[in-house]
Amino acid sequence: MFKKILIANRGEIALRIIRTCREMGIKTVAVYSTADRDSLHVRFADEAVCIGPPASRLSYLSIQNIISAAEVTGADAIHPGYGFLSENSEFSQICADYGIKFIGATAEQINGMGDKATAKATMRDAEVPVIPGSEGLLESIEEGKVLAADMGYPVILKATAGGGGRGMRIVTKEAEFEKAWNDARQESGAAFGNDGLYLEKFVEEPRHIEIQIIGDQYGKVCHLSERDCSIQRRHQKLVEETPSPAITPELREKMGEAAIKGAQAIGYEGAGTVEFLVDKHGNFFFMEMNTRIQVEHPITEEVTDFDLIKEQIKVAAGEPISGRNYTPKLFAMECRINAEDPANSFRPSPGKITNLHFPGGHGVRIDSHVYSGYTIPPNYDSMIAKLIVSGQSRAEVITRMKRALQEFVIEGIKTTIPFHIKLMDDEGFRSGNFTTKFLESFDFSDL
Amino acid sequence: MFKKILIANRGEIALRIIRTCREMGIKTVAVYSTADRDSLHVRFADEAVCIGPPASRLSYLSIQNIISAAEVTGADAIHPGYGFLSENSEFSQICADYGIKFIGATAEQINGMGDKATAKATMRDAEVPVIPGSEGLLESIEEGKVLAADMGYPVILKATAGGGGRGMRIVTKEAEFEKAWNDARQESGAAFGNDGLYLEKFVEEPRHIEIQIIGDQYGKVCHLSERDCSIQRRHQKLVEETPSPAITPELREKMGEAAIKGAQAIGYEGAGTVEFLVDKHGNFFFMEMNTRIQVEHPITEEVTDFDLIKEQIKVAAGEPISGRNYTPKLFAMECRINAEDPANSFRPSPGKITNLHFPGGHGVRIDSHVYSGYTIPPNYDSMIAKLIVSGQSRAEVITRMKRALQEFVIEGIKTTIPFHIKLMDDEGFRSGNFTTKFLESFDFSDL
Repeated sequence: MFKKILIANRGEIALRIIRTCREMGIKTVAVYSTADRDSLHVRFADEAVCIGPPASRLSYLSIQNIISAAEVTGADAIHPGYGFLSENSEFSQICADYGIKFIGATAEQINGMGDKATAKATMRDAEVPVIPGSEGLLESIEEGKVLAADMGYPVILKATAGGGGRGMRIVTKEAEFEKAWNDARQESGAAFGNDGLYLEKFVEEPRHIEIQIIGDQYGKVCHLSERDCSIQRRHQKLVEETPSPAITPELREKMGEAAIKGAQAIGYEGAGTVEFLVDKHGNFFFMEMNTRIQVEHPITEEVTDFDLIKEQIKVAAGEPISGRNYTPKLFAMECRINAEDPANSFRPSPGKITNLHFPGGHGVRIDSHVYSGYTIPPNYDSMIAKLIVSGQSRAEVITRMKRALQEFVIEGIKTTIPFHIKLMDDEGFRSGNFTTKFLESFDFSDL
Repeated sequence: MFKKILIANRGEIALRIIRTCREMGIKTVAVYSTADRDSLHVRFADEAVCIGPPASRLSYLSIQNIISAAEVTGADAIHPGYGFLSENSEFSQICADYGIKFIGATAEQINGMGDKATAKATMRDAEVPVIPGSEGLLESIEEGKVLAADMGYPVILKATAGGGGRGMRIVTKEAEFEKAWNDARQESGAAFGNDGLYLEKFVEEPRHIEIQIIGDQYGKVCHLSERDCSIQRRHQKLVEETPSPAITPELREKMGEAAIKGAQAIGYEGAGTVEFLVDKHGNFFFMEMNTRIQVEHPITEEVTDFDLIKEQIKVAAGEPISGRNYTPKLFAMECRINAEDPANSFRPSPGKITNLHFPGGHGVRIDSHVYSGYTIPPNYDSMIAKLIVSGQSRAEVITRMKRALQEFVIEGIKTTIPFHIKLMDDEGFRSGNFTTKFLESFDFSDL
């Protein structure tokens, strides 16, 4: 087992990793920028090394500074957390070159999943369902129609140079194809000076469902069931839960098997997540694979009793996994508490926390690096705490989450707590019947 | 289901009950003495009624004031928590007379278990093992010898007027009996002016093990496994854990069955605890039954996922239980964080908490009514928080507990945290091989 792990990250995930290392009897090295010298992750580590100024490029993203810190402190492994260098293949390779174990994917695995086209091709070869679509640009209306008939309507035409919805048309039947084609070409030509179009199957009422997997060095991979991350605002997840209200045991089994096949196809070891879109018919399509721990991993921990960081460290050290898949028996949900003003387009609200009180009691977990008197720097992402709740049913989890949110006291800054309280009372959310578009029609004005 | 519950208690247990009521959609009424007006249990209740001055006799023990508060607020049930009026049969009866549901045992059940001699007789009749002993005083050496031979050595002679170990002799074989008899008589005669002796089986290397039970109004009782409460200082529990390192599956099954038989013998409904002494041979003996929720109930919640307060409320409202016994799959431990100076004979240390930070992360639960800036009044017991940790093994729980204790910040007062940290490092404690005498030889001097 490792003697000393350097945590190449900040905030709650750095503290989260330090906690597990401490429980495993492994020494820890925190790194920090000058903006983070008062963070709890610095206080709770055995050693702490300042790696530069607030700008991430010069500190948390500086491979040179981090490797130097590991060399100076004699760390024999580096845990990258999420974000920053966690999916940087160069960093993974340099760690390997220096004989420091990178607790994450190899450079090859990261590269294989980092490029979307390659990842999609790899998954298709491994018989993991991917979103059907044209191979590159369409040559003609006729080619598009044949392809659309093949994959089944609805389909979506997308401008290769597109963005923000422009040059994009959903086509629900063949009779509409020609008009949609012409409109999309005209719009994208005008907007981008490029009228090239490609075609994809349109995923109806999609949910974002991801499968947690873990693999060891001996080719064994198991899945720890799904997380539903459909509650997003501008592709930022705000609430995650497990199990998903939309996933049947049969679908879970199929998606779990697909995720395992995908991971095995690239010889994956460590903890990873395979993200899928699931449509209203129960079809699922590979989106991407994250070769790292996720922000929302604690909800999986709460229902499986596994410590995923511990499992990551163990497999990185060469321990085998049991290879048993997990079937959910409990329910868990996470609310991301951000220093943002939800009534004001989620504008960041850094500053000093003048008063802080965490909720407690049965089924309530807090992961946070902040404390009363702490000043949130404006330099990084605004998540200041994860409130994780578990219980015997989804209804119990929602009522428990609401009472925990109501107990949560954070003064001096704006937070997303009012949004979460309103969400817990929302009938659509409570019904469990929602898609990734849910928050597009949510009323944030009275928060 | 009840519409509004008055919580006839204070501190962490009052807040604990309010949390569950809130999750169940039941309104709450807090009561408080003037010393407790700033407690979180007052802030988080829907209504709060001041019931008198700091002296418990005039507030938390005043049946009249509490019933008045319930009448004024229209509460249809009262939860008494633990301590105070929770095992007061008169209070239970008066609640019944007023048509207010007492969430606890009936007056009859409380009386049946409140008097030790009656409780012991009831349990013996129900075939629950009790500590063998003489029926009242011994008439002669010969009677004592016959009885001792019958129950098996070692036995203990106790002065009927005794206390503090005086007039008490452990007898390990018959050859020692006569000398022990004479010594004990002489000592007790000299000390108390009364040389009457009685005899009991001597429980060797006893552990304090209690079984959590829950019964419904339809005669069904199930057990939720045991809690080991052997870590005591002067009969005050400081640390509790489940499962007990000393209990085999077979013994758990036997003790669980005995606890259920005992509870059924008195037609028990609600949550209760049957306390046993277990000797080094795996024999167990009934000590007492607590007809209420216990301080240490959260460790059972953590390993069973049941909310015991919710279960109490549900059975009080007439709901049936499943009747399934629980077999432990997880491990949990509780440290009682008291405002006491462990290096100074655990002298109470009330006063203002100038800085407070709770530990968090995987497997960590906090039940507490205090906050930064709160002043602990000197009038009540000194427990200010319960730190509850769960995990996949006893070893994991101990290391997790230690790291959580190390993260816990409470400034302005002395607490028992240094004692708990030392205990988690203690080889004897870590081995799991200890008795109720463990803390008698513990070195508190370097805390």
